[in-house]
This record gives sequence, C-alpha cells and structure tokens, in this order.
Amino acid sequence: MRIKVEKRPVVVPGFRFAGVACGIKPSGKKDLSLIVCERPAAAVAAFTTNAVKAAPVLIGLERIKARRLQAIVVNSGNANAATGQQGLKLARDMCALVARTLALDEHLVLPSSTGKIGLLPPWEKLQAGIRAACAALSPDKFWDALAGIMTTDAFPKASVRQITVRGKPVIIAGLAKGAGMIHPRMATMLCYVLTDAHVAPAALQHVLDHALASSFNAIAIDGDTSTNDTVVLMANGMAGNRELQGNGKDFFAFRAAVSEVCRELARLIVKDGEGATRVVDIFVRGAKDAADADKVARAVASSPLVKTAFYGGDPNWGRIACAVGYSGAVVNPHRLEIAIGEVVVSKNGSSTGPTQEQQAALVMQQPEFAVTIDLHIGRGTAHVTTSDLTVAYVRFNSGYST
Amino acid sequence: MRIKVEKRPVVVPGFRFAGVACGIKPSGKKDLSLIVCERPAAAVAAFTTNAVKAAPVLIGLERIKARRLQAIVVNSGNANAATGQQGLKLARDMCALVARTLALDEHLVLPSSTGKIGLLPPWEKLQAGIRAACAALSPDKFWDALAGIMTTDAFPKASVRQITVRGKPVIIAGLAKGAGMIHPRMATMLCYVLTDAHVAPAALQHVLDHALASSFNAIAIDGDTSTNDTVVLMANGMAGNRELQGNGKDFFAFRAAVSEVCRELARLIVKDGEGATRVVDIFVRGAKDAADADKVARAVASSPLVKTAFYGGDPNWGRIACAVGYSGAVVNPHRLEIAIGEVVVSKNGSSTGPTQEQQAALVMQQPEFAVTIDLHIGRGTAHVTTSDLTVAYVRFNSGYST
Repeated sequence: MRIKVEKRPVVVPGFRFAGVACGIKPSGKKDLSLIVCERPAAAVAAFTTNAVKAAPVLIGLERIKARRLQAIVVNSGNANAATGQQGLKLARDMCALVARTLALDEHLVLPSSTGKIGLLPPWEKLQAGIRAACAALSPDKFWDALAGIMTTDAFPKASVRQITVRGKPVIIAGLAKGAGMIHPRMATMLCYVLTDAHVAPAALQHVLDHALASSFNAIAIDGDTSTNDTVVLMANGMAGNRELQGNGKDFFAFRAAVSEVCRELARLIVKDGEGATRVVDIFVRGAKDAADADKVARAVASSPLVKTAFYGGDPNWGRIACAVGYSGAVVNPHRLEIAIGEVVVSKNGSSTGPTQEQQAALVMQQPEFAVTIDLHIGRGTAHVTTSDLTVAYVRFNSGYST
Repeated sequence: MRIKVEKRPVVVPGFRFAGVACGIKPSGKKDLSLIVCERPAAAVAAFTTNAVKAAPVLIGLERIKARRLQAIVVNSGNANAATGQQGLKLARDMCALVARTLALDEHLVLPSSTGKIGLLPPWEKLQAGIRAACAALSPDKFWDALAGIMTTDAFPKASVRQITVRGKPVIIAGLAKGAGMIHPRMATMLCYVLTDAHVAPAALQHVLDHALASSFNAIAIDGDTSTNDTVVLMANGMAGNRELQGNGKDFFAFRAAVSEVCRELARLIVKDGEGATRVVDIFVRGAKDAADADKVARAVASSPLVKTAFYGGDPNWGRIACAVGYSGAVVNPHRLEIAIGEVVVSKNGSSTGPTQEQQAALVMQQPEFAVTIDLHIGRGTAHVTTSDLTVAYVRFNSGYST
C-alpha cells in the first residue's frame, strides 16, 4: 500500500538530526543519517535474534550494555553483514569518526546499517558522508534523517506523541524503516524512538520490552528475520520531569505512549509490505495459554496459503483451520470457530454455510480487516498483524539481477 | 514444471484397480478410485500430523492399527475435512459400500479424500462412483486409479521397481498425487505403494518409516501440512518369497527399493510445485548434529526470500546465510560456507567475490541444482528438496473465487 505522509515538523528537545547522500545508493538518494543528542542520554535497544548478525549489531550489542548513548550513525544501501573482521573495524571507524568530529565519547555512538549483505561498505564514501552529516546537524532535520535510513520503503514511517509527565510536556518521536516483506539484500527493520523524558535506564528497558511485545514482535511478515534488525529507545531528560522509575501513573502513561508509537510504526511497516494490498489482524482467543495462542496466530499469519487467500479476497477458512492444525498448539477441531470481520464462517469445526462465506468475501474487499480464531479451550489470547502475499511480492523479490 | 510421462503398463500381482468419474469434479474428470487386493495384505500407513484431520484420516488411523488392509477407496474433488460427525459417517459408508459390493470385511477398507475443505462430499455421486469402480476393477487399470486421485497435479506420478527377493521377482509400484505447493481447497499429498512381496507387518512398518524419512518428510514446500496427507504401503505376499523379517540382505534391498520409489514420487511432487520452475536440493553438513542440520535445511528450503531468489536465478547467498542464522541451529557465522552447485559463493561468512557469484548465477539457470551449506561445526548432515516461489504460485493460489 502507499500511504500519503504529511511531513509535519518534528522536534525533540536536545536532539539534532541529519541525512545526506554519500553515494552508497546508486540512485543518489540520502544514505547516511545522524541522530545526535546534546548530552549523553539513557538508552536501551533490542537487536535481531538471527545468529548471523551484522557488524553494527555486534558493536551495538556491546555498547548498549552501559545503557547510555549520545549518537546514532546509520548508513543505508549496504548492510555491512557477512563482512568479517573488516566489517567490524569499519563499523567502529564510523562511530569513531562521528565522535572525533563532534567531540563525543566514541563508545556512546551506536552504528546501524541496512542494505545489501556480503559486501564491505565503501569507507571513502562513508567518511565523506559522516563529515557532511556532522556539518548538517540541526534540530529540524528529522525527516532528512528518516530519508537517509530508508531502502525499499515506499513511504517514510514516523510516529509522534506528546504527553504530560509529572507536569512537564514530553515528546516521543519514532522513525523507522522496513518494508513488511524484507527486500533481497535490503533487509532489515530499523527503528529509533527518541524522547526528552527523564527516565531511569532500568525503567526505560522495561518500557522498550513492553512496547516491543505488542508492536515489532507482533507483526508476522514472511518469517525471515534480518541480520540487522535494530530498535533503539533514547531518553535525554531535557523535559525536566522528575526521573521516572518503573511504576506510578505517569510511568505507565509514558510506557503506553511509547508502545503506541512503536505499534504505529510496526503497522506502517506491515502496510509497506512489498506488494502488500491488505493488512490483516489475526486475533486468537480461547487457547490453552498465551504461548499456544501466539503459536496459532503466527502459523496463520505466516501461512503462504492463507496469505494468498487474503490477496485473492477468498474466505477460505479451510486454509486457516489447516494452519491452526499444524501450529503445534493444543487444538480441538470440533470446537474451532473462525470469523472474518464479524462474520463467523466456521463453527464447531464445520462451515456455517455459503451465505456467511459470501458476507466474509465482502469483508475481505476492505484494505484492512480482522480474522478471529476462537479455540474454545482456555483463556489464552494473542494478536499478530500480517499482510497478504501478492504477485507483486514475488516479482519484487525475484526480478533483479546482481 | 511439466513432466512428460510415458504410461507403461503397471501390473502388481494380486491387485486390481479402477478409476471412474462420478461427478464430484465439475470438470467431469475421474474422481473416484479403487485399489483392491485379492486377499487381505500386510499394510502400514502414515498420516498427516495436522491436529485438524480429515474424516477419512481419522478412520484410517483406527483401521491401520491391525496392519491389514484389502482395499483403498479414494475420492478427489472434496477433502471431507472439517465436516464433523456427518463426514465420519460418510467415510465409513464409503468403505462399507465397497465391502458390501465386493464381499470384503469393511474394516479392511481404508478411505482417502482430497479436495475442497469444509463441505460434505455428495453421497449420491459417491455411491454411484463406488459401484461403477467396483464393476470396472481390473489388474491393468493402474493409470485409471492414478487419474482418479489427482486434483491440481499437472501430471500423474508413478514409480515402479522390480527386484529379486529371496529368489523371487517382486514388483513395487507407487502412485501419488500432490502438487508441491498445496492448492487452495485441493490440499493433500496421497501416496499408495503396492507390492507383491511377502513381508511381516512389523518389518513393513520399519520399511515405511525408513522410506518416509528420505522422501515425503524431506521435501519442504510451503510449510503448510494438509489435513488429509496419507501414505499407505501394502504387501500382499503373492510373489511367494519367504516372509521378510526386519533384517538380512534381501530385507535391506527391499527397503532400499521402497525408499527409492517414495523418493522418486516425492521429487515428482516437488517438480509439480504450483508454478515451480526449479527443483533445488539443499544439502547441509558440518552441523552440530542431525537435528540441527535438519533445522538449517528446512529454514533455507522454506524461506520465501530464498525461494524467490531461486526463481529469479539470483545467487543471493546473503538470504541463505540469513535463513541459516534464524534456523535455531548452532551457527558460527565466521565458519559458514555456502556453495551453489560446485561454486563456493561464501566462505568464513564472507563473499568469495563477484566471479563466483557470476558462475553461481549460471548454475541457477538449470532447472535442478544443489545448494550446499557447511556449518563447519560438527558432523550433522541433512538433505531437503524444495522448489522456487514464483509469480505463478501466487496467481494460482489467489486467483479463484469460491
């Protein structure tokens, strides 16, 4: 889907941004971004669980342990993954150059890369890009930084919330890149959430964990986990609120707002699924427990047969029942109930009739709809958002030569 | 792919076959088949692991416990799945009608169905079909029976071996249906392997288990397990060999021949993948153990990104490395080696250079090629056969209305 994005000014007190073109992308588009805080900020991050991790992820995993960051440097067009020792050195050198140019501690700089795997990024271009980005830094260049992290994205992904924390206005702004179906060598989901709230690092970790569960960890695209996936949450405290610890009304309001930002970004990533024409929410209830519900939701959300049926607008609940069956969850086929939108198409494991299927087919004409699966066994629930699998997806991911 | 099949006569002493059209398929093609043995035969079977099992599978699971069968009745065009108690009764009635007409014990008749899920098959048509098939039974109608079990198959799938067992000539003939990517409501892989060898039932079970591991359980298509998958192996002993027990040279020769038949049928199913243009063998070695090797092989063989790269003829080893990384196996990215055909495209986790990629791209122009992944950790190996993911697959699975 294509989303029309209105680029309203985004300012997060204490943060400066830059996005420049340094020539890594053959298109000449922006491919190097900087996010810099005027002072070290509390920071937490989550990275890909893939055993094959890109060099910047390996560096990031080390550096985030201190839960403090001052800058993030991102290049797009090259993932710096499967690049061995040279790749690690290059990722460190990127940070060192930022640190040297801006007089920061290099261990407070986190690197990210996204793009082609297996090729060392061109250091000359990166150098020039980092220098240009350092010179271009400005509080109002949020959208430039966002442009510089994009690869196959059809539209930029941003989400902003303003809330009051302990009497102080606080901004939470997220920028993300990622197309639902990961592109050939342009894999990766990157997301940076920035806030001027004052939050204790341990509490911030809790906020991120909570936000991930209902956002980036609740979208099922094609099952491929990238080598470079990264989510960073930085809180610089410039709002001047009394430091949030991990409880209290204001903490939970802050946590909810960060979760909303992440959910909005995750949903935009699903909408930007390569070739996707529909966004489908899979709700599971009545499972033995939450883990079983999650298994069912993911099996259904990842089934190529279910996803092609979504594309075809076909209320083929048999395929959904089949995916429920092989999910590994405890299932009693005779209790299974499946609804598309509000229309129950299968009850007690059997069809509810052709009228219901016709109504469900109408629901599936919508660009967004829900599928609800009730196992009628226990109280476990889950929610996963997915997209359809389209002819355009296959074209997109096969139709290019190296 | 389309395979040109030469329909040579297939005769298995003691077995009669029939395949007729009873009107379940709107096309008017054959949709009811019978395989009948002139006396009860040793028989073993394997069924889908999907928790949502079709009615005939539930009946089959019961009946195969005795390890004896005399007939198999199969309808295509309707899976009799998600049809509740009525479906179970209908599957039993199918067998009872065969038994009554041919004067057999109905508990020695195994039913199979394949086709649309969620709709009760039309009993009137089935009745007429079963009667016609009983009347048409003949030792030389193997290909008719095969035609009657097909749904979306682009070509019939048969495999025959002749060997000598304890001095007696023995025939092993297999017939199968299934397109690599399972069709909308025409799911299911069905396979019947028939032999005149004399084999003890326990030994026969061992033969089937062994054959499955390297054949139907070693093909990865789209990850969807059908509600109806069934493999049956019947041995009627008409060859007159001294009964095979589970050991000795002749037993192992027999086991190898059955495995070959199953492997050939499984490979034909992959070749008939909906829209498939390439068959790819994924070989994994150097894994911590066999289980880890299997995880890697299946992750690579099932990755939509890897499979679209196969379709595009793109030697995108980064996608393969990425799938290895998320497989869940123990992986040391710095030891990972990937070859396409004989061309090593990645070593120690890094590219071997553009020349190798160009050579690999040439290998990928072939309709069949191998990908070899060496983890360089232990001695675990695995082999899974897969196909590419094509534009035609998505068209096929989305472009029909109910």
